[in-house]
Amino acid sequence: MRVALGVEYFGSPFRGWQSQTGGGTVQDVLEAALAQIAGQPVATLCAGRTDAGVHAIQQVVHFDAPVARPLTAWVRGVNSHLPDGVAVRWAQPVGDEFHARFSAHGRRYRYLLLNRPQRPGLWQGRVGWFHLPLNLAAMQDACCRLPGEHDFSAFRAAQCQAKSPVKLMTAASVRQCGAMFIFDFAASAFLHHMVRNLVGTLVHVGKGAQSPEWVDALLQMRDRTQAAPTFSPDGLYFRGPVYEAHWGLPEPADDFLDGMLT
Amino acid sequence: MRVALGVEYFGSPFRGWQSQTGGGTVQDVLEAALAQIAGQPVATLCAGRTDAGVHAIQQVVHFDAPVARPLTAWVRGVNSHLPDGVAVRWAQPVGDEFHARFSAHGRRYRYLLLNRPQRPGLWQGRVGWFHLPLNLAAMQDACCRLPGEHDFSAFRAAQCQAKSPVKLMTAASVRQCGAMFIFDFAASAFLHHMVRNLVGTLVHVGKGAQSPEWVDALLQMRDRTQAAPTFSPDGLYFRGPVYEAHWGLPEPADDFLDGMLT
Repeated sequence: MRVALGVEYFGSPFRGWQSQTGGGTVQDVLEAALAQIAGQPVATLCAGRTDAGVHAIQQVVHFDAPVARPLTAWVRGVNSHLPDGVAVRWAQPVGDEFHARFSAHGRRYRYLLLNRPQRPGLWQGRVGWFHLPLNLAAMQDACCRLPGEHDFSAFRAAQCQAKSPVKLMTAASVRQCGAMFIFDFAASAFLHHMVRNLVGTLVHVGKGAQSPEWVDALLQMRDRTQAAPTFSPDGLYFRGPVYEAHWGLPEPADDFLDGMLT
Repeated sequence: MRVALGVEYFGSPFRGWQSQTGGGTVQDVLEAALAQIAGQPVATLCAGRTDAGVHAIQQVVHFDAPVARPLTAWVRGVNSHLPDGVAVRWAQPVGDEFHARFSAHGRRYRYLLLNRPQRPGLWQGRVGWFHLPLNLAAMQDACCRLPGEHDFSAFRAAQCQAKSPVKLMTAASVRQCGAMFIFDFAASAFLHHMVRNLVGTLVHVGKGAQSPEWVDALLQMRDRTQAAPTFSPDGLYFRGPVYEAHWGLPEPADDFLDGMLT
């Protein structure tokens, strides 16, 4: 039986999602916990491979259960074997044609940016930080220029392995809640470091170093060296993939923030 | 010159505020950082000694600066010597008659409680957790019974050193934002473990084990053994002391939450 899991994690202690030599990744601890329940190795595939230090509100993975277990075992049982900071939210049976990555037709990311002179203390590791005042209206103007199908090469890391830099961005917004700026992006898929590069560029506009029109120019130039530096992973949250409704998978919800944001 | 500091911290890695043999407290790291700037030892006094694992949105401390330094040195300079998770928000000169603890005529605490079947992952260490459904209206009814001058012995830890268990509670409320319950308390002062004991009791009411009137009975019985167990420190935030306006000290603001909570 193929099973889909919704997983949330605090990414700071991890070397990213994907298993690698030396361990220390979220996939490593999740597969180890699943193996405890299954009594044998379990391989997982995920919807979005997050980088080192990036958090997930709803990562979705699937695996083919080598043994029959009640769904609660894949949630509570697995959670009892996971380290602090990683938790399975739900488990659901899916057809064999479901694939966490290939069935997803969209992905969503959130970035939290603390904007104040003093570096973060209480929320350190959970937010990016910029110390100079930011102009919300200018950043919102810049955001409006992102939706649509574009070549996002200007926001693509050198090591990106995507076949094409052309992606369909379906939403890009920024709002301000006190000293916190909340950026939300949705796209068909994201290039490596794309959100962190977009935030770097939007902050460049927000501090007045460039006008909002600069975003149009960057999209046309398709030159990574022209855009702003990559922002910290601390404030980046993978909100989760988007699937067709017929799969019946739960929508992502950040219990901490989504209830408070209007 | 006497200086007041506003300090925020993530309490999980610390053994509480107050210096103790073996170190590992917030006071230890703050005084070490201040000593780096002053070039000699600096002793601090705080408004509220938080327990191990408890966070602070605005701890206030004062110290007598042994050398003259610009105020920015007591903020940015000190921050450069503080570990991750502790940050000075502001520094302000105050008269010698100011005392972080004795000048405060009130204190405020917030408790964040995640209410869902699965344990916290992404927000682990930042929220308390309860797995069964909670009745908001019943907890609000129970909260209404707390304001006023009461003997809070039923909510007082055995090791509490306060001279009197009688405190004036000025506000007690709970609201729900999605799966998160946010408890806010304000009082003249708090007994040891008082907020965590109050939250334990409110959760007991919320899950239906007791009626809201139980709070009245507990206040009258003044017997710690009758009330519910102490809740985890993970969700507890010291929002800060209350001073007379003439001191001109900044109001506490949680940059993460206060902007989002309406």
